[in-house]
Amino acid sequence: MVLKLHGFPVSPSTARVEACLHEKALDFEFVPVNILGLENKQPSFLAKNPFGQIPAFEDGDVTLFESRAITAYVAEKFKETGYDLIRHENLKEAALVKVWIEVESQQYHPAICPIVYEFFGKPVVGCKPDQTVIDASLEKLKKVLDVYETRLSSNKYLAGDFYSLADLHHFAYTFYFMKTPWSSLINDRPHVKAWWEEISARPASVKVAEGMNFGEVEIK
Amino acid sequence: MVLKLHGFPVSPSTARVEACLHEKALDFEFVPVNILGLENKQPSFLAKNPFGQIPAFEDGDVTLFESRAITAYVAEKFKETGYDLIRHENLKEAALVKVWIEVESQQYHPAICPIVYEFFGKPVVGCKPDQTVIDASLEKLKKVLDVYETRLSSNKYLAGDFYSLADLHHFAYTFYFMKTPWSSLINDRPHVKAWWEEISARPASVKVAEGMNFGEVEIK
Repeated sequence: MVLKLHGFPVSPSTARVEACLHEKALDFEFVPVNILGLENKQPSFLAKNPFGQIPAFEDGDVTLFESRAITAYVAEKFKETGYDLIRHENLKEAALVKVWIEVESQQYHPAICPIVYEFFGKPVVGCKPDQTVIDASLEKLKKVLDVYETRLSSNKYLAGDFYSLADLHHFAYTFYFMKTPWSSLINDRPHVKAWWEEISARPASVKVAEGMNFGEVEIK
Repeated sequence: MVLKLHGFPVSPSTARVEACLHEKALDFEFVPVNILGLENKQPSFLAKNPFGQIPAFEDGDVTLFESRAITAYVAEKFKETGYDLIRHENLKEAALVKVWIEVESQQYHPAICPIVYEFFGKPVVGCKPDQTVIDASLEKLKKVLDVYETRLSSNKYLAGDFYSLADLHHFAYTFYFMKTPWSSLINDRPHVKAWWEEISARPASVKVAEGMNFGEVEIK
């Protein structure tokens, strides 16, 4: 059964799923979606994701969307393949993976996403970044990173001394954030910096980053 | 082993976990956290949740936070007890539960949360609701509910013809939203209305709602 990932390599949400598939050492077919041509708003794509957002994922007759749901599905279905991202053999570790997955979703993402969107996304469509939004988001992000710094001073990774899906979920947005003028928020916190260096050096991360050239090349 | 839920009954996030524990027919000890006295910002609580937010949850030596991580843990650990919220015996159904859990987290919650917060939360601390925020959030919510209306016209519940954790996660915020002047957003969409009536009539929902009197009584 061929796994199919419908997405756009530059998109952080697409990259999140790609990184997961690489960690699980799974073969998959990448199906490019022309989001600038609004292919994602056409009926054929809306049948895969009614919100018209990328990525979407197919595993035989199972069609999924929402990047974090796709990674959770992949990590669980293929738990015996590749790297174990969910610590499925240890109830306590698996519980902490769930907690820090939610921290990314509810604390980190709402703070970092507007910064990446304003800085990289707005200029693509000819708009000026809104510095008020960026500043407010940077303040939120600092508070989140202060908690991370403490957490990472006693644990190598967020859920414990093991890399997990919780760390993986942070990769794509942080990758772009590190190319903004505010990367010192990461670099000035030594444990967060060391954590970032670890997760971004993983072969799966490096491979995904090859396609993440937002702001560097013309997007077609 | 006594399960402990640290929270505040009025809080939607606390209510989310309570509803899950009731669906799973689990006994638990409710430990009230005096959030108006900032007990959640004290070191003893920060040791349970470094972000200082409620709820927190204890199962022996496992301490968890983030309501959706707690419900996922409870639904999985106790999958054979009470109502099966994650359809653990059916891969495809379980995958769709994951998808619609993420839809609540990434689409529904960011739209409905600011409305509930502005309408109920701001007055508690002596502030006036910001109608600009409410109006923008109502527009977002309408778009999400249009997708729900279509989805629920061919499925009784979000993930399929079965109640699941995805539906449960919607209960608490929608309960408060239905007490705002904008409840017609739900009531004018017949399939969404029928879905809401189903999920809010479940014994677990009714039980949790008894403590959800935000805006009705003085909060001490």
